[in-house]
Amino acid sequence: MDGLTVADAQRCVIAAMKILGTESVPLKQALGRVLAEDVRANRDQPPYDVSAMDGFAIRSTDVVSVPATLEIIEDIRAGDMPRKTLNAGQCARIMTGAPVPPGADAVIRVEDTQAIGAHQVQITVTVKPRNDIRDRGENMTTGEVVLARGTAITPGVIGMLAMVKQAEVPVYRQPRVAILSTGDELEGLDEPLNPNKIPDANSYALMAQVQALGIDPVLLGIARDDPDDLRAALQRGLQFDVLLVSGGTSVGVHDYVRPTLEALGVQMQFWRVAMKPGHPMAFGIAPLTWVFGIPGNPVSSMVCFEEFIGPALRKLMGHTRVFRQTVTARLAREIKHRHRRTEFVRVMLAREDNIWVATPTGNQGSGILRSMALAEGLMVVPAASADVAAGATVQVQLLDGMNFQQDAGGEW
Amino acid sequence: MDGLTVADAQRCVIAAMKILGTESVPLKQALGRVLAEDVRANRDQPPYDVSAMDGFAIRSTDVVSVPATLEIIEDIRAGDMPRKTLNAGQCARIMTGAPVPPGADAVIRVEDTQAIGAHQVQITVTVKPRNDIRDRGENMTTGEVVLARGTAITPGVIGMLAMVKQAEVPVYRQPRVAILSTGDELEGLDEPLNPNKIPDANSYALMAQVQALGIDPVLLGIARDDPDDLRAALQRGLQFDVLLVSGGTSVGVHDYVRPTLEALGVQMQFWRVAMKPGHPMAFGIAPLTWVFGIPGNPVSSMVCFEEFIGPALRKLMGHTRVFRQTVTARLAREIKHRHRRTEFVRVMLAREDNIWVATPTGNQGSGILRSMALAEGLMVVPAASADVAAGATVQVQLLDGMNFQQDAGGEW
Repeated sequence: MDGLTVADAQRCVIAAMKILGTESVPLKQALGRVLAEDVRANRDQPPYDVSAMDGFAIRSTDVVSVPATLEIIEDIRAGDMPRKTLNAGQCARIMTGAPVPPGADAVIRVEDTQAIGAHQVQITVTVKPRNDIRDRGENMTTGEVVLARGTAITPGVIGMLAMVKQAEVPVYRQPRVAILSTGDELEGLDEPLNPNKIPDANSYALMAQVQALGIDPVLLGIARDDPDDLRAALQRGLQFDVLLVSGGTSVGVHDYVRPTLEALGVQMQFWRVAMKPGHPMAFGIAPLTWVFGIPGNPVSSMVCFEEFIGPALRKLMGHTRVFRQTVTARLAREIKHRHRRTEFVRVMLAREDNIWVATPTGNQGSGILRSMALAEGLMVVPAASADVAAGATVQVQLLDGMNFQQDAGGEW
Repeated sequence: MDGLTVADAQRCVIAAMKILGTESVPLKQALGRVLAEDVRANRDQPPYDVSAMDGFAIRSTDVVSVPATLEIIEDIRAGDMPRKTLNAGQCARIMTGAPVPPGADAVIRVEDTQAIGAHQVQITVTVKPRNDIRDRGENMTTGEVVLARGTAITPGVIGMLAMVKQAEVPVYRQPRVAILSTGDELEGLDEPLNPNKIPDANSYALMAQVQALGIDPVLLGIARDDPDDLRAALQRGLQFDVLLVSGGTSVGVHDYVRPTLEALGVQMQFWRVAMKPGHPMAFGIAPLTWVFGIPGNPVSSMVCFEEFIGPALRKLMGHTRVFRQTVTARLAREIKHRHRRTEFVRVMLAREDNIWVATPTGNQGSGILRSMALAEGLMVVPAASADVAAGATVQVQLLDGMNFQQDAGGEW
């Protein structure tokens, strides 16, 4: 096998990642981060026994035989405190979420009552004690851990944090990420068009992949194929937590990246992964920095990001779910597989009869970035696989495009 | 049926949404937006016939019988232009991506050659014309539409935009979104703890749901149950494209939201949806603003956002895929369904033998926000459904937590 297997390379990368420390951020900036401490309830919730419905707080012994006519002695709204205690034959009008008054032991919904003037109500049903009462502390009790350290902060978690009034949230620090492209042939985004050059797409595609994880990377630009220029750029990159270097990692005469990284103290862990695209994928460890050497062509670069760098960054952020969601799909047309590398085939995905159907995006050449722009998933063809026939069941990693779908899903 | 069906309410909302106009943003801020114009190639790519491999550019007629020894007349690197024309018996050393020199019509990979000193090489294979040459314009030709208007900007699309050097990107404008909570019982995040009050979780959960779509909403705070205060707050909200009002939409005596909105010129489209949680869900249209009236309890609020408001915001952003991705799953334990409303059951999801297994998060009470914080999906129980048995095949909408998984998926 020419290079590590994908699974071994992933294990090597993930095992090397360590959480970077903690910081506190305002609740408005906490989405997508990971809790660095347990979060505890700051009060009982509900703080009292409260009504689960709009209706009447009553004594259940008063409605053993119905209809029963009760005297309304008070109106209790959410946010009010009851001022009176119910005696036999009395009730209180009560709103959802309002505290149940002393003496009451059940709530009757307004639908099960009939008004008799302003001060009396007829109850038409019998209920058990505690009917439609939510118990004090039913949602949470003071001091209880309501969110554990390591929880990924989704919108629902933001709601819980607001519920316990955590205006500042302890989270793991984000990795600082630098991106460097290398190669004399590259033309920067703000340079004039030169037909002899190739636009630097990698820096921006990698930037967007990092941004999609909620991290704002720093673009270091393009280092030329000159040992001094490259060395200076790599030295700058080694001040970050994570350095992504694209290009210059193959074995051509002009590929200075590897020796320069090693001269700067980076311990290379591997230089080849048995995958396609993405074969010349490298990973090294410096005292302060994890370094990824990424193939110069943009499809390979993006696939290597998905398989290794994205998972690594998510682990650094404190996430435990670090890999792209994988789904089972039916392959729409044959894929030839005549080599011993794991292949990542760019596919479009559709749902047909509740089954995913994966259709390759066309030309899978690693220079064809359009295949990645169209891709909604990466179909994995294991290294040992033969050709994969049309109709075969395959595994597909979902990419960013697949979080949403066009139709609502049903007439429900 | 008490209220519109979910599907009818979704259609009503989506049909009312209109794209808001276009703007130009720097490439670094374009991720997640939608292209408002076609994007065209700014040059042929490759700009010349280029080598697909590291090797030697040759004349195929020179290698009809092999081994053949050729004279190396030039080294051509990516980014160089050839200076010489090949004559019979000559070749040029060439790197991947470098232009093929005049006279050459094929490339031989370095693996299929043997060096003979510095200036000669022995070729050991016969190849057809065009072997390992990528044609000028193979990826894109000048003026060709490479990305269509309406394309959602994923990392792959960012790469394509950099490839055609689109430093400023024409995109649809984002909706400006305001969030208002209502109710005397609510306690703001920065207010001291008062056991008679309920913390305002809705504003923040809604904020995070809007943020997750890439939009930064404005929080208008809490309007009290006072007609003047409420009117002023709603007037402020009606200066935004979209106003989310939570609480005060049921029919209690203290619910001023509906009459105040109507007095301010909002044409209400519906006030009830036959769903659980989320029954008192309202939608109205003002001259400048789409208004959503959202139930005051946080689970209902979050579910209503997922079903109606998120899709509406995504349509306003120009997306065509606006609904949460739905997957088929196996239900882990029975769900009772004894009413005629569509129910959204909060579930956790796991993959077992390549099948999704959906497990309800426990107490499904609409006051139990923890069920939403734990939820990885919303299982849909159609209004007409009977009880759903353990083991049944069900449809589940994936929430934010499910974009990533813990393991890489396989030993590939």
